[in-house]
This record gives sequence, structure tokens and C-alpha cells, in this order.
Amino acid sequence: MNALGYYNGKWGPLDEMTVPMNDRGGYFGDGVYDATCAVNGVIFALDEHVERFFNSARLLEIKLSCSRDELKTILYDMLAKLDDNELFVYWQATRGTGQRNHAFPEGNSNLWIIIKPGPIPDIYRKIKLITMEDTRFLHCNIKTINLIPSVIASQRAKEAGCHEAVFHRSETVTECAHSNVHIIKDGKFITHPADNLILRGIARSHLARACRRLGIPVEERDFTLSELFNADEILTSSASTFGLSACEVDGKPAGGKAPELLKKIQDEVMREFSEVTGYKKN
Amino acid sequence: MNALGYYNGKWGPLDEMTVPMNDRGGYFGDGVYDATCAVNGVIFALDEHVERFFNSARLLEIKLSCSRDELKTILYDMLAKLDDNELFVYWQATRGTGQRNHAFPEGNSNLWIIIKPGPIPDIYRKIKLITMEDTRFLHCNIKTINLIPSVIASQRAKEAGCHEAVFHRSETVTECAHSNVHIIKDGKFITHPADNLILRGIARSHLARACRRLGIPVEERDFTLSELFNADEILTSSASTFGLSACEVDGKPAGGKAPELLKKIQDEVMREFSEVTGYKKN
Repeated sequence: MNALGYYNGKWGPLDEMTVPMNDRGGYFGDGVYDATCAVNGVIFALDEHVERFFNSARLLEIKLSCSRDELKTILYDMLAKLDDNELFVYWQATRGTGQRNHAFPEGNSNLWIIIKPGPIPDIYRKIKLITMEDTRFLHCNIKTINLIPSVIASQRAKEAGCHEAVFHRSETVTECAHSNVHIIKDGKFITHPADNLILRGIARSHLARACRRLGIPVEERDFTLSELFNADEILTSSASTFGLSACEVDGKPAGGKAPELLKKIQDEVMREFSEVTGYKKN
Repeated sequence: MNALGYYNGKWGPLDEMTVPMNDRGGYFGDGVYDATCAVNGVIFALDEHVERFFNSARLLEIKLSCSRDELKTILYDMLAKLDDNELFVYWQATRGTGQRNHAFPEGNSNLWIIIKPGPIPDIYRKIKLITMEDTRFLHCNIKTINLIPSVIASQRAKEAGCHEAVFHRSETVTECAHSNVHIIKDGKFITHPADNLILRGIARSHLARACRRLGIPVEERDFTLSELFNADEILTSSASTFGLSACEVDGKPAGGKAPELLKKIQDEVMREFSEVTGYKKN
């Protein structure tokens, strides 16, 4: 099996799996999710991702049908059914099943799991970015499946031959379509505060902790588009990319002015990842 | 059959219908919809709803798999399979099927239809409202299925024993969780401009046209929470409610100061609806 789908206890090849038409995911996007990668049968940072998932569900008042430990057990059971060594592990809960009516339904939420190949990326490769006005809702701290603005921004990035789109609210940089974004300037790691305008990224936390271990000051504060364009280095982070650095923003060269510091941080992030998962680069 | 579900040509009892787990509706809420009511086998204002649906799809670059006329034919074919005389007719298009990846997939969009009983409401009954800060994205002119803020607001209204939640951005009233909202003051009908902060409601257009036929001035302009609380009358409108008036906002008495003018407008809206559909109140 190349990719696995799981829905409320049933599982099978992802492309053959179906869900009820009345699942509220399908007509309201009424759900929350989380995702991470797995290598050598180890789901990386699972406790942190499960904790964030439960927090997202709590913030939207979605009653989960299983405990943290039960969820972890199910994820590991499903992981064991796949042969690939490097996998993307995704799960979501939707607010139950019922005929379309905005107010909350009776009954349990639905648990969806998707596990598919997810090769561990080369953290040292360079990426290109575009910038876009951030027109999303004011609940970006909750990892919901209301993702149309991220879909559109990702498509714009792809069309521009870029990896990601950096959102900004007026002059303030918030995050990317499916990553957080950070800058290195004058030896400091600078990242948007974990407020309601960004997701509290777990890779972001790992990056910040790596910096602290290395004695690099971490500043959680708003930074501007101008600071982004003039940064010594620009980093994006997500559970499936760890911390990629950018060489170009909106077609202009960017970053690349603190390569040694950047490499120290990336080395430290990968050291931790390899220590936990036994990952070795081919 | 009490309620019908349709998905890309397959149809059956709604509660038994399934869709692929890989439909982008289920994990990105990546779709647009429209809905109206049907009476005596007539789908009300169908041309206007189909036109808006195609416009929503165009704005999100979702390629629809059928023409306007083909869609209307399918909707009428499905309508004919149900016995109820008063029905809610809903359809949506999601941006195709494929393994989760933000950028647009290859292939066609998916067409979903839901038809279920939808009794025509008594337009003359009074409703209660709550108010809530509008924290939604800045694409409310597009009728998408990214509806979590409307779900939460509707639940808050229900818990308060109310029918709807009125959103406001700071002092400016925008619309409700699943309706537009308007006020009558000093003989004028006042409604938020059809910008990106509200849906261009079709019932809203019908209300405004009814006012114009009656010689009642229509002002499309921002109005404030204070104007809402001090309005002569407050009206909400949606395809399934036409134009209900409020007697209470946030637990305080509201409206009720221009009952004759209100009734004239509501009578005119229902006259048009009855003329088109042959609807007669039981």
C-alpha cells in the first residue's frame, strides 16, 4: 500500500477510501488537523503535535472521540501498515456527521488519518518566495481545515516558480501559506510572536530551541517586509521541511549574508531530528 | 426519499451517500456553493443563484465541470425525485480529488448536490439576534465552504436562544453568520455595500428591489452597531428566510418602530415569491 486512509476505525488504500457526504468537513470545512513526518517507524515530535491538535479542537469546541494515548496508538498502528521509511503522517477531526445545519450537531467527531510517502527534504537547499497580503481570518493560531487562502497563495507561489508565499498584514510579516517564516539579522533569530495571526509552529519551536542551545538570541516580535528583504538570512519552517532558507523573494536576491550561522542552526535542528529518529541522510 | 445526495452523477438517500476521502472539500474546505428554496417544483431565483455560483467559482479559479444550463437541468432532475413540496436545494463544487497538496490539482472539480425538506418560513415572525466581532477572512463576497466562523457564531446564537449572530468589524455592521442584515431608519432601507466584507445576497437584492418598487429609498452604506440598536426596524435576509425582522439584539428590545413600512416590504417580497412559484401560505 502506497498511501493509507483511515476513517473512524476503517482503513484502506487512501485513493479508495470514502467518507460520508454528511461529514461536516465536506461542506463547512468544520475541522482541525495536525501533521508531522515519520522515519524508521518513529513519528517525530508526536507528543507536541498531539498536544497542539487537542488544543485546536478545544479552541473550536470539537469533542474528540479518543484520548491522546489512544490517538497515538492508532497512528502507530496505521504507520505499521506501510512499507516506506519516510512518511507524512496527517490526522484531522471533523465536527461529526449530520445534515447541513450551522450549529453544532449531536454525536461524536470523526477521526481521519492520512499516511503517505513524505521524503525527508534536504534542509540545506535554497528556496524562492513570493509575498502576498494576508487576508485570512483572525484564528490562524488554530490549525483548521479552512484553508482556501493558503491554497490560493500556494498556487500563486507555484506559478511563480517559488516554494512558498509569505503573508503580510500591511507591512507586518506574519507567516507563509503552509510554513512559519523567520529572519536572522545581526546574529539574532527573529520570529513573529505566537499570537492569533500565526500558527504556533512546532518546527518553529524546534528552530528557536536550537538557537537558544547555540547561544543565538531569539526575538519574538513583529518584523516588516522591509526587514524581510534586508535580512541576513530568511528561514521558513514546517513539520515536513524543518527549516529551509530562501535565496530570493519576489524575484529579488535575499538572504545569504550569514551562511555560517544559518548552517549552525540547521545542523543543530537535523542533529536533534537524527538523534530522535535515527535518520541518516542517504 | 426524505433527503437526496448527488455526487458527480451518482445519487441516493443523502444519509447513505459517500464521497472520496481525497475530495479537497474534506481537508481544505476548498470549494464554493450556493443554495435556494424550491416550491411546487420551481427552484426560486435559480438563474441568479447559478450566476453567483459561477462567479464564486471564477473568483477561486475552480473550473466547473458543467455549463449553467447543464447544472440547472441536473438540479431539476434531482428535485423531481423528491416528494416534499417545500425543499432546500444546495449545491457545491470542490476543487477536485487528489492526495493532499495545497496547489491546484489536475482534473475536474466535483459537483455535490443536497436536496432536503425546507419548509417556507413565516416571514412575519420575529427573531432575536446577538452581536459578535467579525473575525472572518476578507473574501466574504465569495460563497465558500470555509465556514468555521459562521459555525461558531451560529452556535453562540443558538446557545443564547437567538436565531442569528450579527457580525461587526469594530463599530461597522457587516452581515450575519448565514444571512445579510439591514436596517430601516426614517423611511429608508439601509444595507452594507456589496464589497468583500459581505456576501452579495440574492434575498438582499430582492428586498432592495422590493423597496425600490415601493418607492422606499435604498442606501448602500456602512452602518454602525449604534445604528443597528437604534433602527426603526432590523431585517435579516437569506435564500431560506427571505426577510425576517428582529425584536431583540443582545437581550435588548430592538426594532418594532416602523411595523407598517416593514409589512409593506415583506408583503411585496412574498408577493413576488408567490407569483414566481405559486406558493400559497397554508
